[in-house]
Amino acid sequence: MEHPENDAQYKGLTVNAGIVQPDSVSPYLKNRPRRKREVLSVNDYVEGILKGNITILSQAVTLVESLRPDHQVLAQEVIEKCLPYAGKSVRIGISGVPGAGKSTSIDAFGIHVLKEYGGKLAVLAIDPSSERSKGSILGDKTRMERLSVHPDAFIRPSPTAGSLGGVARKTRESIVLCEAAGFDKIFVETVGVGQSETACHSMVDFFLLIQLAGTGDELQGIKRGIMEMADGIVINKADGDNIEPARLAASQLRNAIHIFPTPESGWTPHVLTYSGFFGNGIKEIWDMVYSYIAFVKENGYFDYRRNEQSKYWMYESIHERLRDNFYQNPLIESMLQDEERAVLEGRISSFIAAKHLLDAYFEKKL
Amino acid sequence: MEHPENDAQYKGLTVNAGIVQPDSVSPYLKNRPRRKREVLSVNDYVEGILKGNITILSQAVTLVESLRPDHQVLAQEVIEKCLPYAGKSVRIGISGVPGAGKSTSIDAFGIHVLKEYGGKLAVLAIDPSSERSKGSILGDKTRMERLSVHPDAFIRPSPTAGSLGGVARKTRESIVLCEAAGFDKIFVETVGVGQSETACHSMVDFFLLIQLAGTGDELQGIKRGIMEMADGIVINKADGDNIEPARLAASQLRNAIHIFPTPESGWTPHVLTYSGFFGNGIKEIWDMVYSYIAFVKENGYFDYRRNEQSKYWMYESIHERLRDNFYQNPLIESMLQDEERAVLEGRISSFIAAKHLLDAYFEKKL
Repeated sequence: MEHPENDAQYKGLTVNAGIVQPDSVSPYLKNRPRRKREVLSVNDYVEGILKGNITILSQAVTLVESLRPDHQVLAQEVIEKCLPYAGKSVRIGISGVPGAGKSTSIDAFGIHVLKEYGGKLAVLAIDPSSERSKGSILGDKTRMERLSVHPDAFIRPSPTAGSLGGVARKTRESIVLCEAAGFDKIFVETVGVGQSETACHSMVDFFLLIQLAGTGDELQGIKRGIMEMADGIVINKADGDNIEPARLAASQLRNAIHIFPTPESGWTPHVLTYSGFFGNGIKEIWDMVYSYIAFVKENGYFDYRRNEQSKYWMYESIHERLRDNFYQNPLIESMLQDEERAVLEGRISSFIAAKHLLDAYFEKKL
Repeated sequence: MEHPENDAQYKGLTVNAGIVQPDSVSPYLKNRPRRKREVLSVNDYVEGILKGNITILSQAVTLVESLRPDHQVLAQEVIEKCLPYAGKSVRIGISGVPGAGKSTSIDAFGIHVLKEYGGKLAVLAIDPSSERSKGSILGDKTRMERLSVHPDAFIRPSPTAGSLGGVARKTRESIVLCEAAGFDKIFVETVGVGQSETACHSMVDFFLLIQLAGTGDELQGIKRGIMEMADGIVINKADGDNIEPARLAASQLRNAIHIFPTPESGWTPHVLTYSGFFGNGIKEIWDMVYSYIAFVKENGYFDYRRNEQSKYWMYESIHERLRDNFYQNPLIESMLQDEERAVLEGRISSFIAAKHLLDAYFEKKL
């Protein structure tokens, strides 16, 4: 699918809105014959990005997301040339289950940080489910109504191609492009239902978890393992009758957190309440985030974490490709189900099954 | 290194003690010339194991732990023949940081379950550090003084060979042999410092975490992520002046646990206090463990978890071997450091570095 922002005639639209949302193009524009897209060279892309040209940035992100091998080669060259100009932003992961009010919150957060700290904000996303649900996050432009028309904001839905690994990789590469284009604040949104959080956590400097006060003692929808990734937990919808339940939940969470030893960063996660809709408590959240950033830049953890993340992605990419190559091997595909069944029925051990498959794979290979 | 129990003349020793501890052999015995070991056939091993012969079981475990390729082939055949007789035990993982009193507790736990429930108990371990520390767990026989002389207990230190994956695999294979030998209770001890717990968790039916009440609010030494694996948490040394702090810690932990949603098993982890040394609270712990087992056998989670574990080990073995094959490739070994440095210095992206390595690997391979 060709994104409308790739076509020169729509440039005005995308620059103003800062949103890349094919579905928002009017039927009239959709049905007009498109002009053949001019092919940009690597240098065109890089120059455009470094000048902060949103249209070209947008096209480059589309290139990164493309599955076409020639696009991928081009994209890697663009990324490599942008790398020296990247890395200077503050990257914030924002997660929360559906219904926690992520979009409204991100709208409020974005407007706040742009007003208070200036600069430029890019909002990206990791949502491997978006292919099926056609952009379940960042898809509904109306939920970020202020940010979507802000001249210093760039909002981009989740890449829709394939596996979590693939989607996350594209988001991480888009971060590089956005940073080279002068975006000094990056939000990465995830859906809050599990593995996407690990991927998001491994590309941001601060991981913010949005929660709701639940019924009874439980926090609604919190997943095991996710709370431990959070550098800050914020409880949304602390307004009206819900202020007290939100405060109670915050206090319970603080107690729970204090049972654990201090994380590697030396920073004990803060728990705050706010209302994304009414805009209460937003300032306190971002004071907290920026205190954290100052704290970890001072103690060296900021750079340490970024280096660890770079290594993580290198090794993760290697392991993903090794696994893909194995499981996509026709011989393995034909054997796998039977071996798994034999293991589940207790006929052979897990290790023998693995050995059968590996022997077949390497014998064929070598 | 040849374990003394492999030599026929020491059989009496190991059968009585149920312990395999090379260092506990007297200098006199150590210096005597050894008789050539008789080579057992696969059928000898299997028959001996199925008869519950501890000496042969012990030799088979040594075979599983051996790094010699011919031993490994033999071991796999023995395991495969034992598989139909395995799986009928209750497997309990027991973890806790050094100083939590694991050995004293396991001694008390073991004596309790053998007295109350009968049957036979095997105590195995996963401790990848034991090669360096020469058996840091299960090494000190005196700490399990009652269990180590119990006729229905078999205590075996951690395999010492290599990586966590290798050590864990050997422990998991030893479980099969012990079960085939009629051990219907298996304890798997780990050191409580991180990754070993994941490995242990993935081979047991119940994961028991031993804690100490710490100073202030914090539980001493609890690691992030480990608490979430626990099906039960027990706070040791609840005796004398420490009863109140232990109870307080238990109550804080219970509150923390209730914030999370109920685990997949449908069982909310219990938190209890006890004294391994004085033997208080032991009965309550094992009533709890056996309630859990009854509960998950009833709701189907017991079998589900075992199946998931079998699959986990099959895929884990595959991925480990794929990675080993990659990183042990001389070409990759020669390139890896430079690529990683280039990534850390921001010269190339993580994905490009991965690509360089993968291209070199697969080009060489195919």
